[in-house]
Amino acid sequence: MNMSIGSMPHGKRNLITDVPGVLVGHATVDAGDCHTGVTVILPPRRNPFTDKLTAAACVFNGFGKTQGLVQVEELGTLETPIALTNTLNVGKVHDALVGYMIDLCRQDGLSLTSVNPVVCECNDSRLSDIVRRPVGEKEVLSAIRSASADFAQGAVGAGRGTTCYGMKGGIGSASRLMEIDGKTFTIGVLVQSNYGASGDFRAACLPPDLAECDQGSIILIVATDLPLSARQLKRVLRRTSVGMARLGSYIGHGSGEIAVGFTTAPLTDAGDSFRTQTVLREEKMNIPFRAVGECAEEAILQSMWHAGADTALDGAPIPCLRDFIKDQHAKEESK
Amino acid sequence: MNMSIGSMPHGKRNLITDVPGVLVGHATVDAGDCHTGVTVILPPRRNPFTDKLTAAACVFNGFGKTQGLVQVEELGTLETPIALTNTLNVGKVHDALVGYMIDLCRQDGLSLTSVNPVVCECNDSRLSDIVRRPVGEKEVLSAIRSASADFAQGAVGAGRGTTCYGMKGGIGSASRLMEIDGKTFTIGVLVQSNYGASGDFRAACLPPDLAECDQGSIILIVATDLPLSARQLKRVLRRTSVGMARLGSYIGHGSGEIAVGFTTAPLTDAGDSFRTQTVLREEKMNIPFRAVGECAEEAILQSMWHAGADTALDGAPIPCLRDFIKDQHAKEESK
Amino acid sequence: MNMSIGSMPHGKRNLITDVPGVLVGHATVDAGDCHTGVTVILPPRRNPFTDKLTAAACVFNGFGKTQGLVQVEELGTLETPIALTNTLNVGKVHDALVGYMIDLCRQDGLSLTSVNPVVCECNDSRLSDIVRRPVGEKEVLSAIRSASADFAQGAVGAGRGTTCYGMKGGIGSASRLMEIDGKTFTIGVLVQSNYGASGDFRAACLPPDLAECDQGSIILIVATDLPLSARQLKRVLRRTSVGMARLGSYIGHGSGEIAVGFTTAPLTDAGDSFRTQTVLREEKMNIPFRAVGECAEEAILQSMWHAGADTALDGAPIPCLRDFIKDQHAKEESK
Amino acid sequence: MNMSIGSMPHGKRNLITDVPGVLVGHATVDAGDCHTGVTVILPPRRNPFTDKLTAAACVFNGFGKTQGLVQVEELGTLETPIALTNTLNVGKVHDALVGYMIDLCRQDGLSLTSVNPVVCECNDSRLSDIVRRPVGEKEVLSAIRSASADFAQGAVGAGRGTTCYGMKGGIGSASRLMEIDGKTFTIGVLVQSNYGASGDFRAACLPPDLAECDQGSIILIVATDLPLSARQLKRVLRRTSVGMARLGSYIGHGSGEIAVGFTTAPLTDAGDSFRTQTVLREEKMNIPFRAVGECAEEAILQSMWHAGADTALDGAPIPCLRDFIKDQHAKEESK
Repeated sequence: MNMSIGSMPHGKRNLITDVPGVLVGHATVDAGDCHTGVTVILPPRRNPFTDKLTAAACVFNGFGKTQGLVQVEELGTLETPIALTNTLNVGKVHDALVGYMIDLCRQDGLSLTSVNPVVCECNDSRLSDIVRRPVGEKEVLSAIRSASADFAQGAVGAGRGTTCYGMKGGIGSASRLMEIDGKTFTIGVLVQSNYGASGDFRAACLPPDLAECDQGSIILIVATDLPLSARQLKRVLRRTSVGMARLGSYIGHGSGEIAVGFTTAPLTDAGDSFRTQTVLREEKMNIPFRAVGECAEEAILQSMWHAGADTALDGAPIPCLRDFIKDQHAKEESK
Repeated sequence: MNMSIGSMPHGKRNLITDVPGVLVGHATVDAGDCHTGVTVILPPRRNPFTDKLTAAACVFNGFGKTQGLVQVEELGTLETPIALTNTLNVGKVHDALVGYMIDLCRQDGLSLTSVNPVVCECNDSRLSDIVRRPVGEKEVLSAIRSASADFAQGAVGAGRGTTCYGMKGGIGSASRLMEIDGKTFTIGVLVQSNYGASGDFRAACLPPDLAECDQGSIILIVATDLPLSARQLKRVLRRTSVGMARLGSYIGHGSGEIAVGFTTAPLTDAGDSFRTQTVLREEKMNIPFRAVGECAEEAILQSMWHAGADTALDGAPIPCLRDFIKDQHAKEESK
Repeated sequence: MNMSIGSMPHGKRNLITDVPGVLVGHATVDAGDCHTGVTVILPPRRNPFTDKLTAAACVFNGFGKTQGLVQVEELGTLETPIALTNTLNVGKVHDALVGYMIDLCRQDGLSLTSVNPVVCECNDSRLSDIVRRPVGEKEVLSAIRSASADFAQGAVGAGRGTTCYGMKGGIGSASRLMEIDGKTFTIGVLVQSNYGASGDFRAACLPPDLAECDQGSIILIVATDLPLSARQLKRVLRRTSVGMARLGSYIGHGSGEIAVGFTTAPLTDAGDSFRTQTVLREEKMNIPFRAVGECAEEAILQSMWHAGADTALDGAPIPCLRDFIKDQHAKEESK
Repeated sequence: MNMSIGSMPHGKRNLITDVPGVLVGHATVDAGDCHTGVTVILPPRRNPFTDKLTAAACVFNGFGKTQGLVQVEELGTLETPIALTNTLNVGKVHDALVGYMIDLCRQDGLSLTSVNPVVCECNDSRLSDIVRRPVGEKEVLSAIRSASADFAQGAVGAGRGTTCYGMKGGIGSASRLMEIDGKTFTIGVLVQSNYGASGDFRAACLPPDLAECDQGSIILIVATDLPLSARQLKRVLRRTSVGMARLGSYIGHGSGEIAVGFTTAPLTDAGDSFRTQTVLREEKMNIPFRAVGECAEEAILQSMWHAGADTALDGAPIPCLRDFIKDQHAKEESK
C-alpha cells in the first residue's frame, strides 16, 4: 500500500513529535479481558498551566465523551497534557491529570485550585472489557513519564483495543513541513482510530462484512509550531475531516469525531496587561489546511498499518491491514 | 427581602422538584478542611439511559469544567442523572456516575459500554481544601439514594462551600407554573451559586469589598414537563442569563456560567424507525422564557437566603444574606 | 466517467426535484460581459411563510455572503424559496424575494411585515463582470415562474459563470431513495459548484495548472421528505462535506462552503399551542447520512458533466469535463 | 431619571464616536407613511476592505435578518461600514454598500469582486409602512457622507420608527474609558432599540399595556480601540446582554437581539506571511466586560431619552420617556 499521501514533505520521524518539543507516551493495559490503555501528548512546556498554549477544538460528530472542550472553546488555551483513553475511563484519567497538575504546580510553589484537563476517548469494548476502567493514576503517570519523541504506533496505549474499518486500528501519526518566509514550520497529527465501515474504505478493497456500521469514534490531535490564533487553529482543525472522508468515512452517527489542537508558538509579554501574538496572514491559511489534511489521512493509515491482527472478546478475528495487503499481493502474484 | 420575583405563580414547593418526578439529593462532606459535596438531579426515569430525555445546554461563559456537553449538544438527549460538585472533583464524580449507570443497566440485563454523564462544577476553594477531591463513589451513591422531592437549600451538597456576591452561596431552587391550553406545566431551576462581585448585587446593598471580583461560576439546572424540542429547550436555557444579570452579574471572566436542562415530556414510538414528539408552538415560547428568567433570579436568591454564615479557609468571615438583611432592618428601626 | 456514486438507488430524475413537490427554476443572464444568473429552489408550499418548513444550515467555511442563516439557525424554519446567485448580487436578490413574498402574502390577505429570505452565492467573477449586478426582480420572478421538476443542469442560472476544479462548473443535482419502515423517502442535493484546485480532483486526473488554488465557494441545497427535526437535519447537512472531500476538496480558505436544507415533512396541529412532529429515531440516522454524502458527491460531478467549455473574461479557456474525458479516452484508444 | 449607569467614566461625548476615528451618520426618511431610515457606523479606515478591522458578532436571539455574520464569524474581520435599517430594507441597503465599496476600491485602483457588507435591522412597522423599502443607494450614501463624530440620537436614521418598552425608541449611544497600563482606551456602544414589554422596564414604572410583548429586536454595535483578538471581542460582545437584562428584557421570542463589534487596534506586518497582534491578557478581560455592560444599558436609555413622542400607523400614541418622567415628577410634586 502506498502510504505517501499528498504532495508535501514530512518531518524527520513523520510523527507529531516532529513538532519541536512535543512528546508522546503510552501505557498499555493487558489484564484479563482488559486490552486498553492511555496515550498522552505532552506539549513543550515544563508547566502548561503557568505557560498556556493557544489551542482549539472542532467537533465533527459529538457522539463522544471528550472532556475539557468547554474551556478550550472559550479561552483558546490548553493548560494540561492531552490524554486519550477508552470511553468509560475518562473520569479516572481526568482525575489522574488533575493530580498530576497539582503536583507539577506544587513543585513551582503554586497551589493549584482549578485546572482543565483535556481527555478524549474511543470505545474499545469490542476487544476490551470496558466496564472495568483499569486506567488510573498509575497508568497515566507511567504514560507521562515514558513520553518521548520516538513512540510506538498501532495497538498501543489508547489504541490497544480500537478497530478501524473493521481492521485493527490504534494510534497513528504523521507530519508535514511547511516553508513560509524562509522558515520551516511543522504540523503533526496523532489519531486514535476506531471508526469506519469496511465497505467504505477507499485505500484498499476490504470485505464489507468486517464492519458494517461506521461507529466507534476517531480522535485527531493536531500540534504545530506555526504561529496561529485560536480562531485560525480551529479553521485548521476543521480540515482534518478531509483526511477522514478521503479514506471513506461517512461521519457515522455512532462515531464521535473530534479534533483538538495546539500551537507551540509563544506569546510575548507587552507590559503588564498585554501580550503580543504573531499570527499567519489569513490568505496563507491554505498552507496549513493542505498539510493537516494530508497528515490526518496518513495518520489514520499508519494507525492501521502498525496494528497487528487481534481477536475480539466474542472470539471474532480482527484482521490487520498489513497482512491483508500481503495476502492480496500474494494472491495476485499466484495468478 | 422580598423574594417574590416576577409575576408568575410558583409550584407547591417552589422547587425544581415541582416538575413531576424530578428528585434532588445531596451528600455533604465536612472533614478537616474539606467543606464540599455533591448534588444530584434525578430525572423521572427509572433508567435514563434506556429511556433518554430531550435535553440541551447553554454556555454563557465557558471558563468551567462541566463534562458531557459535547454529546448533549449533538444528540439533544440526557442519559444519566446530573451531578454538581467542586471543580477538581469532576473526574471522580464522572467515574462514580459511570459505575452507577453500569449497575443500573445490569439490573435491566443490559451490558452498558458507553454512557455520557453530565457533571457540572463550581470552585469552592475559598472554603474548602479543593485539592483533596473527597467526593467519590460513596458520596455520589449516597446523594442518589437520598434524592427526594423535598430537599435542603443553602450550604449543602455541591453548595456546601460556595460563595455568591461575597455572601455565603449554595444550592437554591424555584419553580413557576404555566397554564397552556387548559393544562398546567411546570418549569423549575436549581442553581449552584458561586459568582458575583458584592458591589454589583442589586437585590440589596452589599459592601463592595466582600468580593471585589465576579468569579467562581454558577450552574443552572432547568427541568420542565413542557413538551419542547432540544432546539427550543436551548432557547429557554439562554433566558436563565436574564435572572443572573438582574441580580447584578457582569458575567465575569473567571465565572463559568453554564445552564443544562431537560424536559420530561415523553416521545411516542411511531413504527420501528420513527418517533412522535409534541412541541410548543414557537410563537408561545415567551411563556417558558419569562418563567425560566423568574426562576433563575429567584433560585439564586434562595441559595443565598438559605445559606448560613461561614468562615473561609484563610479565616475571613463569609457573611450570610439573611443576617445581613436582619442587621440592616435593625439599624433602620433603631434610627 | 462512471457517475454512479455509492450504493443507494436514486430517484426517477436523479434530481433534487425527486423530493415530491420540490421545484427548481433558473434565470440566466448573458449580456455583454455578464454571464451569470439566479437559481431558485421552491419548497412544496403554496406560501412557505404561512406554512413554514423545518430547516437547518451548516457552514463548513464561512468565507461567503449567504443571507438568512441567523434566523434559520435560531428557529429551525425556512419561510421563503431559496435563491442562489453571484456574490455581489445577493442584496438585490434578497430584495426581490422580499417583494415576491409581500405579493404572495397579499394574495392570502396577509400584510407581511417581516420575512427571512435565504440567498446563497458563489463568486463567478472569472467569467462574468460581477460588479454590474444584473440579477434583479425581473430575473428572480422569472426563475420562480419557470420552476419545474425537470430543470437544466450545468452552466445555467446561478451556475452560468462558475468553475469547478478548473473546469466549467455550474448547477448539478442528484437524489437517493431510502426505504424505511416499508415507506420510500427521498433526499436530494442541488449544488452550485465553484471550488477546487484542479490538481486535487480525484474523479479524473486534471492538469494541476488549470486552477492552482481551492477558492470560489460551493453551495449545497438539501431537500428531503424524511421527517427530521432541525437538529437532525443539521446533522445530515454536515455529511455533505463527505462528498466534497472525496472529490478532492481541501476546504480552501477562499472557498465559502455552505449547506442549507429543509424537510417537507409536515407538522400537525395539536391544540392551540402545540404541534406534533414525527422524527426519525436517532439510531437510524446513518441512512440519510450515507444518502446525502452520495448525493453531494454525485451532484458536484453532474454540475461539471453538464457544463460546456467556456472562456474566462481574460480570454483563458475554461475546459469542460465531458470533452476532457472524451479526449482522454481517444488518446488511450489511439495508443 | 438618573442616566449615570455604573461606575466607570465616560468619554468626552459619551458616544461610540469617542473611540478615535469612529464616525456615525444618519439618513432619515419621512415620506407618506414611511418613517424610517438608515444609520451607518464608519470605522476609522479610509478603505476598510483593504485595511480590515478585527471584528466579531454575538447572536442572543436570532429571530432577525442581519447580514454578513457568516464571514465575520469565520474570518474575524470587518471590511465595510456597518449599516442599520428596517427589516425589509436590508437587501437594498446591502446592495448600496456593495456599490459604495466598489467605488471606494476603484479610487484605489482595485477591482473589487467580493465584499461582505454587514447590515443589521429592526422592525419599525408599527410606525412606518415597511413594505415600501424606501431606503436605497441615495439614503445610504447620504448617511455615509454626513457621518461625523457628533451625531443625533433618538428618532433619527434607523431609529426613526422604532419603539422600546412601549415608548419611542431609536438610536442611543454611550462610551466608557478604561485605564490600562497607563494608557486610556475607549469602548463605545450604539444601539438601535426596538424591544421590550413595558411592564418589564426596570428604570421607571411604565404602564404594562403600552407594549405587552417583548418583540421587535435590538441591535448593539460595539467599537473600541482596545487591542483584542476576535475571540476576545466576541466575549466582550456577549456582555452587552447584561445591559439589556438589567433594563428588564426577557430576550423575547420575537426580538432579534444581535451585537456586532470591532476594534480599531491595528495589526503590524511581520514579514510577507505573518502579522503581529497585540491582545489584552485574558485575566484583564473584566475591564472591557464591565465597560460594555454599562455602555449597553446606558445607550438603550439614551435612545429612549432622546426620542420624542410619536403616533403609530394605527393612530395609537407612542409616548416618550422624557415626557413620561416629567409628568411623573409633576404628579409627585403636586401631591
